[in-house]
Amino acid sequence: MRDCARLTLAEVHALTLQVLRTHGVSTDQSQAIADTITAAERDDCKAHGLFRLPGYVSSVRSGKVTPDAVPQLRDLAPAIVQVDGQNGFAPLALRLGGAPLVEKARRHGIAALAVTRIYHFAALWPEVEALAAQGLVALACTAAMSYVAPAGGSKPLYGTNPMAFGWPRAGHPPLVFDQASSASARGEIQLHLRAGEPLPVGWAIDAEGRPTTDATAALAGAQLPFGGYKGAAIALMIELLAGALIGEVFSFEASAQDNADGGPPIGGEFVIAIDPARCVEPGDRQRQLTHAEQLFARILAQPGTRLPSDRRYAARQRTPMEGIRIPQALYEELQSLARGTSP
Amino acid sequence: MRDCARLTLAEVHALTLQVLRTHGVSTDQSQAIADTITAAERDDCKAHGLFRLPGYVSSVRSGKVTPDAVPQLRDLAPAIVQVDGQNGFAPLALRLGGAPLVEKARRHGIAALAVTRIYHFAALWPEVEALAAQGLVALACTAAMSYVAPAGGSKPLYGTNPMAFGWPRAGHPPLVFDQASSASARGEIQLHLRAGEPLPVGWAIDAEGRPTTDATAALAGAQLPFGGYKGAAIALMIELLAGALIGEVFSFEASAQDNADGGPPIGGEFVIAIDPARCVEPGDRQRQLTHAEQLFARILAQPGTRLPSDRRYAARQRTPMEGIRIPQALYEELQSLARGTSP
Repeated sequence: MRDCARLTLAEVHALTLQVLRTHGVSTDQSQAIADTITAAERDDCKAHGLFRLPGYVSSVRSGKVTPDAVPQLRDLAPAIVQVDGQNGFAPLALRLGGAPLVEKARRHGIAALAVTRIYHFAALWPEVEALAAQGLVALACTAAMSYVAPAGGSKPLYGTNPMAFGWPRAGHPPLVFDQASSASARGEIQLHLRAGEPLPVGWAIDAEGRPTTDATAALAGAQLPFGGYKGAAIALMIELLAGALIGEVFSFEASAQDNADGGPPIGGEFVIAIDPARCVEPGDRQRQLTHAEQLFARILAQPGTRLPSDRRYAARQRTPMEGIRIPQALYEELQSLARGTSP
Repeated sequence: MRDCARLTLAEVHALTLQVLRTHGVSTDQSQAIADTITAAERDDCKAHGLFRLPGYVSSVRSGKVTPDAVPQLRDLAPAIVQVDGQNGFAPLALRLGGAPLVEKARRHGIAALAVTRIYHFAALWPEVEALAAQGLVALACTAAMSYVAPAGGSKPLYGTNPMAFGWPRAGHPPLVFDQASSASARGEIQLHLRAGEPLPVGWAIDAEGRPTTDATAALAGAQLPFGGYKGAAIALMIELLAGALIGEVFSFEASAQDNADGGPPIGGEFVIAIDPARCVEPGDRQRQLTHAEQLFARILAQPGTRLPSDRRYAARQRTPMEGIRIPQALYEELQSLARGTSP
């Protein structure tokens, strides 16, 4: 493919670091972002990989995000820890909160992490997978910008509000899912627009609230939640957990505050971690994980099924050997950003 | 309506107690069930009201459920409490777990209740509403019998697996939603069968895995999750939380164990309670609830919207004055059950 550049994962990491450092992002912030972007490319999640890097840069250039923010840890309750991201990016704040969250979950059985004042521009599976890899059950959610109509309504209000869940497995990476509360990702609508293709029915409504398969009309109207009013209820729950509960903004407030620099909106993230060993009597502890494997086997015994995270893990086997590809145009843009010569 | 019997809520409660006591259900178990059934009738949730009572009775008559079970409380961790339902019905076990869950959530910020060995035959909103009425944010889920196909699959595996969420409001009953992970309730398919009406597209597949709108074919096949693979992921998460995590069965195991007496299956329930006051710094505590009201106002400002629980609360205003109606045939069946003269 002449239009693609091929990079090793080490090159992905180094290029990300270089771009961020060139634009004054602190070493700690840059390292955490580079790890997150490299993990996305490693798992073939292109929408959260190098593709995001220009957005990180533009939100620093516009003055919206503090590039050298030092997140602050605060103990709010025996089982609640808060990280104030100090208007920096999410990855470093999440990294700071991880260890105390794990410690609290092991000590009390269940614990929560409230991350505030962050700019989140990545998937949620990295944080729940990291917790599940340490033997915990994890649940995370974050709000975003106002794109999705409430149940029965026709104007954007909720974010695409993803929720991720992780379950530890013995001898296998965790079972993880990470899904938006909207029927589609915002980016998928933009891809359809670029390709001049109609949207699937059920993704969006136009500015008058009528169902539409026209991408332009959809972007001017509102996205729909997945699964009708039930998906909308989940989007609402996420607004409350990642917003009001932890003292953070709702999606509609994040949108109102945003400077439209193409980078992420301000917001919060709420993470729950549960220690399975503390949810049963001591004698029953070994059984929980093997029991879950019986359910997974039942799922996979049906033709046509797979476990939510299996596609990512398959990519993870491949990319360390094969490297990854990105569009040549993106590669050149990133090279230019790394040199600090882009307009 | 000549085919309907009209009862006051006090009569609903008394009739339920009488039916259960006649069949040897202990006073404590009966009181808790009567409260739950009366709350359902009060809120016009007919599917969980007196309609359920014959099923409670048949599961006692068949010897499946222990009618005088005394649930046992166990402290598993500082923030985890377990109630072993001892093979009794869910309401008394949930009642026993409520106070320690609230106490733990207030003390630690977040806590969980694992209810095991119960027969759950009701909605989940009563437990999350009770927690939210005490100022806590609550999340509850339970598995059920094997009715729903996994994503990509064609055979029943998951239960209809409801999840409920409650948010406390100042000067207003809590915001609550309670929704199955399946596209429709099992009972809705049975109602379509009885009415000879086709099912909406997307509710079910037949035994060969083909989409069907035929209720008989659907009941022989599998129900579909709401919203495709995303609803299936939520159903899977609930199997894990209300099953393996707390040492309880999965839906497919509950189905295999069940004696098909028409009553509820054995299983578990998992409830999380969060104290909002512990999720922010002390100075920010007042703001959380008023902030949430701003989101609710934004939702309701859009024509066509309502908040998830508003229909129940409207019924709750009505039924104490107007009473409730049930089909005459059901009323006569319940009278007969109360006398102990039914076959």
